[in-house]
Amino acid sequence: MIKQIGRATIGFESAVPICSFASVAGKKEAEGPLGANFDYVDTDPFFGEKTWEKAESTIQKQAVQLALEKENLTPEQINCVFAGDLLNQCIASSFGLRDFGIPLLGLYGACSTMAESLCLASIFVAGGAAKCCAAVASSHFCTAERQFRLPLAYGGQRTPTAQWTATAGGCVIVGGAPKHCNVRHVSIGKIVDLGITDANKMGAAMAPAAASTMCQFLQDTSTTARDYDLILTGDLGYVGSDLLLELTKGEGYNISAVHNDCGKMLYYRKGQDVHSGGSGCGCSAGVLTSTILPAVNRGQYHNVLFVATGALLSPTSTAQGESVPGIAHLVHLQYKEK
Amino acid sequence: MIKQIGRATIGFESAVPICSFASVAGKKEAEGPLGANFDYVDTDPFFGEKTWEKAESTIQKQAVQLALEKENLTPEQINCVFAGDLLNQCIASSFGLRDFGIPLLGLYGACSTMAESLCLASIFVAGGAAKCCAAVASSHFCTAERQFRLPLAYGGQRTPTAQWTATAGGCVIVGGAPKHCNVRHVSIGKIVDLGITDANKMGAAMAPAAASTMCQFLQDTSTTARDYDLILTGDLGYVGSDLLLELTKGEGYNISAVHNDCGKMLYYRKGQDVHSGGSGCGCSAGVLTSTILPAVNRGQYHNVLFVATGALLSPTSTAQGESVPGIAHLVHLQYKEK
Repeated sequence: MIKQIGRATIGFESAVPICSFASVAGKKEAEGPLGANFDYVDTDPFFGEKTWEKAESTIQKQAVQLALEKENLTPEQINCVFAGDLLNQCIASSFGLRDFGIPLLGLYGACSTMAESLCLASIFVAGGAAKCCAAVASSHFCTAERQFRLPLAYGGQRTPTAQWTATAGGCVIVGGAPKHCNVRHVSIGKIVDLGITDANKMGAAMAPAAASTMCQFLQDTSTTARDYDLILTGDLGYVGSDLLLELTKGEGYNISAVHNDCGKMLYYRKGQDVHSGGSGCGCSAGVLTSTILPAVNRGQYHNVLFVATGALLSPTSTAQGESVPGIAHLVHLQYKEK
Repeated sequence: MIKQIGRATIGFESAVPICSFASVAGKKEAEGPLGANFDYVDTDPFFGEKTWEKAESTIQKQAVQLALEKENLTPEQINCVFAGDLLNQCIASSFGLRDFGIPLLGLYGACSTMAESLCLASIFVAGGAAKCCAAVASSHFCTAERQFRLPLAYGGQRTPTAQWTATAGGCVIVGGAPKHCNVRHVSIGKIVDLGITDANKMGAAMAPAAASTMCQFLQDTSTTARDYDLILTGDLGYVGSDLLLELTKGEGYNISAVHNDCGKMLYYRKGQDVHSGGSGCGCSAGVLTSTILPAVNRGQYHNVLFVATGALLSPTSTAQGESVPGIAHLVHLQYKEK
């Protein structure tokens, strides 16, 4: 049922169903263009908890809970959950998912986590290692800001190329009773590092990885941008998206007619002051689960490439003079009659 | 080829070969009882680099390079690498593996990473998603100490229950030309958290997770401790190992005759001043790749359960009053005539 195509593209001969999904977002995200699409919104940045880190755990918990409820699934019916976030030691995932009792495989893929977890969940289900798997990712503006940048109370000035970490999360359940949306291919990305050292320019650091994974996939599958209704990158934002269009054009693929980016979709460019757009694992997770998967299920899109991108840096690597390695994993979503 | 057994145990009908592996260790580890077994030892804690973090990246790089060389493999022949470490944002893996150009799936499983990566690599190969995968994990005493505990120069007193983070790493290549050692089953663990809040007592925090995964596996496969030559836990150390024996006995399994622990094996208890034993992703990775896999290939062991355990805490979660969630993943290694 699994077919290797090239080195890192994997095809599923009978497509793998996505049976349920759910999205959770914060106040700013709910005020953006996709606000009406989220399953659950909390306008309190603490989500009723005492710390932002616990709030982010709550985002993951809520997303899983809602995705289960939509299909009347119990945690016992999920063989395995793949989850990750941006926090040191991925504590949003560990503490958020602790009480479900679902076997857990923790991931670190920075902002590529939603695609990474979906790749793995699909391979488990297609290969017969699981009947049903959950894929989860989250981020929180306040936890990320103080961990990666500056204490929020300091009120530091943001550079024009900086992106805004989304307070959001999503859960996708792979396997189970088919709806219209299926996973048809996945493609595992490799690290691409062109030597960018500005940690406030992550879109630019990730664009080469997105271009690499995407062009490799198009080549492996002998398809072009015309075969897809939407090519959706994770969170390159405005700066990174422009670069991606250039890079893919250089490789002979003109994707501009079908390209969009989760970082560009989540907030209004004017009025929400997010500079180069949204970012964070929760940005692509939230956009995918609130807006894209429902659109595939409605038949609005028939073939979508979801390419979530991650910047594999840490404050320590930046302080030690290292550049920013980028990575991107790809999931080909396909509409199918039931 | 893949068979689900119970909720999270996965069997491979034709066992999955381990074609190569390599181990890397630091000075203290080389002075321990397994010292002669490591493929590469560097007595310089910097491994020739300028920072300890870069040294840990070098450990991963060396381990992968050596594992490839032993089988005359090139990085291009590896479909995918699964890797993780203990550092914030897993930078030892990202920077250590960056130059190989192998598609990367980053993991965070704390000290369970070697088992987590082996589970995933085996499922990829058995399910047809890859021909050859690498599984990699590392840790470094100096990077872990300053990140999780105190600056090394401070010279803080260690508690008797504390464990010593190993400066070591290992790489296992799954798939390829069969040797004698194969993966026969894997079992994905769930989080078990009995409310231990002392971050210097991680063996105790992880023992319940090890017991849970192990007993579930024995039950799923209708086997007992007698069916195995060795049940090897990740790094429970002396304190956690004693607890594990009690907990499993309570579940009706007496494993004491075949149990050992990587944290107990890596250092001399007397003379190396490691208190409750070794720990860190590199502890189980180093013991497995230096000592256990060669012993299976020699036919010294015919059935080994490798159960690496992780404590999914961070300094932030501890500071916020959280307990220490434990997790353990299991790999059943089996000797097979070629």
